Amino acid sequence: MFIMIEPTSSVPIYEQLTRQIIEGIVKGEIKVGDTLPSVRAMAADLGVNMHTVNKSYKALAEKGVVTIKAKSGAVVCAGDVLNEQQILYLQQALKPVLAEGIVLGATEQQLENMLQQLLRELTTKEAML
Amino acid sequence: MFIMIEPTSSVPIYEQLTRQIIEGIVKGEIKVGDTLPSVRAMAADLGVNMHTVNKSYKALAEKGVVTIKAKSGAVVCAGDVLNEQQILYLQQALKPVLAEGIVLGATEQQLENMLQQLLRELTTKEAML
Repeated sequence: MFIMIEPTSSVPIYEQLTRQIIEGIVKGEIKVGDTLPSVRAMAADLGVNMHTVNKSYKALAEKGVVTIKAKSGAVVCAGDVLNEQQILYLQQALKPVLAEGIVLGATEQQLENMLQQLLRELTTKEAML
Repeated sequence: MFIMIEPTSSVPIYEQLTRQIIEGIVKGEIKVGDTLPSVRAMAADLGVNMHTVNKSYKALAEKGVVTIKAKSGAVVCAGDVLNEQQILYLQQALKPVLAEGIVLGATEQQLENMLQQLLRELTTKEAML
């Protein structure tokens, strides 16, 4: 899986890494049961601080995307049926983006179309891979 | 408009303020043309640092939600038709949340329902106000 960090982005580096790992799982480039590279290896590979990679792996564990195991490292776990806490979490993450869309002048239809387009993009593997 | 800051939240205070102002505009509690309280007044009112309020107002200006005028302060501007940059911005904000939803086990239908429910909530004024 190819991860690209943009140091000049306004999105913190650990967050860029977290998002790209999640997108990799959605696209099937990373599979359930896969172990992520060790913190040290990932940091060296991306040329970022180990602390940054550690923060990203912890965030993934908090979200329930990976399980941190003492011996094997960060293992991707199966997306189970959503529990109530996860639904609440997703709602709270979606709400400010939608509110901003409305304030900027987006119609509900536009936002729904955007969601559908993004879901298609996310779940379709790149044609060239 | 009632703004509530939760100091213990993982969401930064300036971001909490930004989101609540945007939601206030969506709900019609703050109207286009309205001037937000001065940085000093808002900070005193919420018991937060002026720097925090300033950061929030600047973020609102960057998003195109308010215009900062030298004399009158932060004035809420009209949500025009979305331009390409704003669409891209919204897509980039939505994408990681949706990817996370899928990884956590949400179906596309669930995410669409969530979006519709949130849009209803956002655009409905509180019954008690």
